[in-house]
Amino acid sequence: MAYTAIELIETKRDRSVLSPDAIEWLIGAYTDGSVPDYQMSAMAMAILLNGMNSDELTAWTEAMLHSGEVMDFSEIAAAKVDKHSTGGVGDKISIPLVPVVAACGVYVPMISGRGLGHTGGTLDKLESIPGFTTGLTPDEFRKVLTEHGLVLAGQSETMVPADRKLYALRDVTGTVPSIPLIASSIMSKKLAEGLDGLLLDVKTGSGAFMKDLVHARALAHTMVGIGASHEVDTVAFITSMSQPLGNEVGNANEIKESIDVLRGEGPADVSELTMVFGETMLELAGVDGGRERLDDAIRSGAALQKFIDVTEAHGGDASVIEDPSLLVRAPHEAVIAAPADGYVTRCDAFIIGVSATWLGAGRERKKDIPDPGVGITLKAKIGDEVAKGDPLAIVRYGDQTKWETQSDTLSSAWTVSERPVSAPELIIERVDVTTI
Amino acid sequence: MAYTAIELIETKRDRSVLSPDAIEWLIGAYTDGSVPDYQMSAMAMAILLNGMNSDELTAWTEAMLHSGEVMDFSEIAAAKVDKHSTGGVGDKISIPLVPVVAACGVYVPMISGRGLGHTGGTLDKLESIPGFTTGLTPDEFRKVLTEHGLVLAGQSETMVPADRKLYALRDVTGTVPSIPLIASSIMSKKLAEGLDGLLLDVKTGSGAFMKDLVHARALAHTMVGIGASHEVDTVAFITSMSQPLGNEVGNANEIKESIDVLRGEGPADVSELTMVFGETMLELAGVDGGRERLDDAIRSGAALQKFIDVTEAHGGDASVIEDPSLLVRAPHEAVIAAPADGYVTRCDAFIIGVSATWLGAGRERKKDIPDPGVGITLKAKIGDEVAKGDPLAIVRYGDQTKWETQSDTLSSAWTVSERPVSAPELIIERVDVTTI
Repeated sequence: MAYTAIELIETKRDRSVLSPDAIEWLIGAYTDGSVPDYQMSAMAMAILLNGMNSDELTAWTEAMLHSGEVMDFSEIAAAKVDKHSTGGVGDKISIPLVPVVAACGVYVPMISGRGLGHTGGTLDKLESIPGFTTGLTPDEFRKVLTEHGLVLAGQSETMVPADRKLYALRDVTGTVPSIPLIASSIMSKKLAEGLDGLLLDVKTGSGAFMKDLVHARALAHTMVGIGASHEVDTVAFITSMSQPLGNEVGNANEIKESIDVLRGEGPADVSELTMVFGETMLELAGVDGGRERLDDAIRSGAALQKFIDVTEAHGGDASVIEDPSLLVRAPHEAVIAAPADGYVTRCDAFIIGVSATWLGAGRERKKDIPDPGVGITLKAKIGDEVAKGDPLAIVRYGDQTKWETQSDTLSSAWTVSERPVSAPELIIERVDVTTI
Repeated sequence: MAYTAIELIETKRDRSVLSPDAIEWLIGAYTDGSVPDYQMSAMAMAILLNGMNSDELTAWTEAMLHSGEVMDFSEIAAAKVDKHSTGGVGDKISIPLVPVVAACGVYVPMISGRGLGHTGGTLDKLESIPGFTTGLTPDEFRKVLTEHGLVLAGQSETMVPADRKLYALRDVTGTVPSIPLIASSIMSKKLAEGLDGLLLDVKTGSGAFMKDLVHARALAHTMVGIGASHEVDTVAFITSMSQPLGNEVGNANEIKESIDVLRGEGPADVSELTMVFGETMLELAGVDGGRERLDDAIRSGAALQKFIDVTEAHGGDASVIEDPSLLVRAPHEAVIAAPADGYVTRCDAFIIGVSATWLGAGRERKKDIPDPGVGITLKAKIGDEVAKGDPLAIVRYGDQTKWETQSDTLSSAWTVSERPVSAPELIIERVDVTTI
């Protein structure tokens, strides 16, 4: 069937439905360059404003997913399950989660991203382990997964090229915040991993991209629907990102906290989310044992050993896992002190994420390279009682000028009040095929 | 003030209002290439779907108009008035209208366009007069206007470059049918002519771009509003384009019919519209005499002489005006015959326009050069009684293969029924600053 980009743009502009054939043609023609950026950006705006129905969304995701190489691990008999988070501050959950479920027999072919905006990225965190290489060839990826049951790598050039191209275009044309485009972008990348099951962590709150529950829920439902239409069991959790997860923000800091979780010594919120997600991934993989089996993997050291094994398989120096004090630390230290006696009623994830980024933990521009040693250790979070002068956070940084521009901003992330409040509910809701 | 294209796209996407400064920046940056096509096409789609308010529209038109050279004829004491049609089939009104009003002392610095889609263009029609050159330098344009009181040329490269660039982009991104974008495109070009008054002919019906009255009315009101905000007296007529205007469609054919009008021998509809528009242009110019003065200009031969003068000033061979049988004619002739006795109840302007284009009178692609001798002479229009076998139209064409592909299509433009219907009302309504 022959199409023209103009007629397809007109179809969406006029609120009609694009056929699966038309979508397949469009994504193919955009990927090979025969449909130019200026047509795709008009289409993206029409989709943002007029939406896509579930058939269009299925076809769009399918076309993106097949725009490049699709992985096939069918020679591995065990179930392959992955997890994706929409991103937050202090969200290091993947790092303890993948080893612990792998230690229970679930195969995890995880492809992660880098920090963008105020959020950190799993790849940047892993690379604070000396030698840890996240850029693997497809053969290396398969080898690490097959040998160890887990792999933690970046996306190769050959996977979902349509998404890479479209994402870059959306970023400069005001067409990022479209639920169908966000959902199909995430799901096309994950479905190209050849999975049996997928767990999605959709964050909501100040430190998340979806600031409010309505949008987070719409995204979760949309992604679970795409998973179902591609016959991949998909469960989404909507979780709170109003304050950072755990006590550590920053690349090496978060590796240290992840190791704590794998040793059974992590902070309650990170440990709990790791375990809830782990249980769900075991379920999705059809692996028995649940929470108890996960606890055993931690207690026995099997989970930590998996992390050591995968670190070595990626060329990393595992001695920092056995002794996290060997991890790099930025040279300077500063303290944010409580301005009054009282209770922390706000510990704003967005502000803390932005400050960490500006101090060097993240990227202001794509080409920036994060400093692994920059980080913020939270000493008081929502609900905690503090006395005036108590540390709210300890900041490690490398550049004094940067710190001076950030100190007031970072301090403004906390509110200390006379009356106590409860910490926010960590898990807001669970969304699966039975609830959409 | 510094802007980024992304924030302005987001503003329009989110249904907020763009400031005049922001619009001026955007149009300037698009014209000089610092805002790329892929951002402008996303903006155009956001405008198409979310609209612009009247302040935005004024600023948008103003910025387009000042993107290039703006003509200034203030050294000519007489009023300068122009006319623009949104385009139709057989719409040659400008050709008799401009000489007749010029013969009454109104100066007309007319910049016209070429045929696009199923419609003809004034420049293509004029160029069927041997030697008639429509591409004038600004100095030549001024000289012809000053000496003769009228000029009929194409747009120079230096006028409204933003519109030329944006129109080409809209054409390939599904963003043509936006009332604010159409209105600002037309009005920026006309206002750059340095006018005192402007008459707009907004066509509606099958052969028009605005197929229905609701959209035609919206466009007319929008353009009259832009005229008012730029202090140019503007009157719009909404006129019928359900059947072609006059009896001739095709370039040389329409020159012949225009000469008939200037001789006082034109078909009733073309002559009437010419006179109504002429009266309004005299009013807009503050020239007395009205219809009677226009009639005198025809009767005395002054109007025809103006057409001869301007033709010679443009390098054209005026002998074809004195003897229209010298105009080029395509070599072959065919007749469309009435399929039954009865009354013509439909004579579809769109189908006739498309057939004329395909036979070679217009352009399928921008680079095509129309054949001036191809044309269709209508022998029966809506309301006429016909006997089976009577000619409905006589077609002149050059390419037998093209005719064979068009003969059935063209025949389908007519419906002959048992009961008579009236011809459609030619002028549907008049819109001016008192009625919007």
